[in-house]
Amino acid sequence: MTNNQLMSRLSLNQITTEQWNLQEAVEGCLRHDVPRISVWRHKIEEVGLKQASRLIKGAGLQVSSICRGGMFPAATAKERAERLDDNKRAVEEAAELDTDTLVLVCGPSADKDIDTARAQVAEGIDSLVPFAKDYGVKLAIEPLHPMFAADRSVINTMNQASTIAENYNQNEVGVIVDVYHVWWDPNLYAEIERAKGRILGFHVSDWKVPMADMFKGRFMMGDGVIEINRMRKAVEQAGYNGPIEVEIINQSLWDRAGDDVLQEVKQSFAKYV
Amino acid sequence: MTNNQLMSRLSLNQITTEQWNLQEAVEGCLRHDVPRISVWRHKIEEVGLKQASRLIKGAGLQVSSICRGGMFPAATAKERAERLDDNKRAVEEAAELDTDTLVLVCGPSADKDIDTARAQVAEGIDSLVPFAKDYGVKLAIEPLHPMFAADRSVINTMNQASTIAENYNQNEVGVIVDVYHVWWDPNLYAEIERAKGRILGFHVSDWKVPMADMFKGRFMMGDGVIEINRMRKAVEQAGYNGPIEVEIINQSLWDRAGDDVLQEVKQSFAKYV
Repeated sequence: MTNNQLMSRLSLNQITTEQWNLQEAVEGCLRHDVPRISVWRHKIEEVGLKQASRLIKGAGLQVSSICRGGMFPAATAKERAERLDDNKRAVEEAAELDTDTLVLVCGPSADKDIDTARAQVAEGIDSLVPFAKDYGVKLAIEPLHPMFAADRSVINTMNQASTIAENYNQNEVGVIVDVYHVWWDPNLYAEIERAKGRILGFHVSDWKVPMADMFKGRFMMGDGVIEINRMRKAVEQAGYNGPIEVEIINQSLWDRAGDDVLQEVKQSFAKYV
Repeated sequence: MTNNQLMSRLSLNQITTEQWNLQEAVEGCLRHDVPRISVWRHKIEEVGLKQASRLIKGAGLQVSSICRGGMFPAATAKERAERLDDNKRAVEEAAELDTDTLVLVCGPSADKDIDTARAQVAEGIDSLVPFAKDYGVKLAIEPLHPMFAADRSVINTMNQASTIAENYNQNEVGVIVDVYHVWWDPNLYAEIERAKGRILGFHVSDWKVPMADMFKGRFMMGDGVIEINRMRKAVEQAGYNGPIEVEIINQSLWDRAGDDVLQEVKQSFAKYV
């Protein structure tokens, strides 16, 4: 793959420039020749879906995914139904923004019972599939690092994500490979191969020691220990040649000018992805 | 199991009261009727092995394990040989203190190549086994949480630990089940069953959100989300009825009086383990 081909796959995951609102992010992408963006729902909410759609389409940007649906487990059936409704709104937003990929961060347990929470995730996805299919939107299960099992997602390995996804057609449910969440997995490359045909996204950042903050501690590609290039080649081997989202959640990046961040993103993307 | 039987299995892992030197920890165990202790090597070094042995045996305390050997991967063959020598000293210390269990924290990669690091762990253990066997000391591989893959251990699941252990006899190599490190694992209970006959220790603490510090952020049993009692019953089902070490690495506990900490340890052990 030439460098130009690689750069054409770059997508700015909007959380990387959390300091920008949607309009600023769209304009930033145009200024820096970034052809794609992954849009977060709290940024859509700020301007409303119609205006978000106008901004993005007017700029000719492609939307690689919507972040995020999920958060299925809850203590009561009523709450779980409300979560499902919210996921349906996320599907509608994805369709309106012309992306076929809704990223699912599946949610933590409401109590100590992690097995039940995992079952509720599977049930939630099962309930959402027909609705999403009507809109032409695929559900992309993103396994989160096991250190988030208590507060963000009880789906923590590629194995879990693929086991759920395989209950459905490839155009209904797939998985996201985010290097930060899965790089440690002893079965990583076998699981990437297994996910062939179901990989709906590839997210990059890096893991560096010491990590001051579990949530906002991700680093720029190349600054840490993750074999990003090896993983990129593995997902390509498994048939994935779609957008590559740069998703770096890091307070120190948010404290800088967005243009500086985006420039550095492009440089380290070209060098280390 | 009666409460008395359970309490007779309690072992103070010395890092829980890091503010105490070895003599203070031994005296604390006597004052609080804690029958066992897990000894850290930096605490032995402070007083010397002979004096450590006199203190512990004079008090009639049983040593549940020595923490810790391991740290096998390194960039050069010379460094790896030095690590192996250090592990042999740890075996000698275990034998001198009349414990048959040396806990292995296997070490991080020297660079980005995690596969090679994992191979170096397997090689290191293979080199250490005959030496340890001569001393009657078993090597207890402790899988560490995946969030420590970059800085403490590339062995991150029960599956990895058992896969290495199964190359040897049960009296040579086994595994440690530490609830903090493995509670998130979707295969946990199957892996505990698989480890039957090879479980050499059960360590308890708790995981609570938010976690301010990945290393020194462990909580008292009952304060977090881990199903400790369920896991204790599972390891018993798998034949383990030995010492249960309380290993809580938490700066706020170290800032308190050791006697207060030990009292609280006993209370939450009785209630939640």
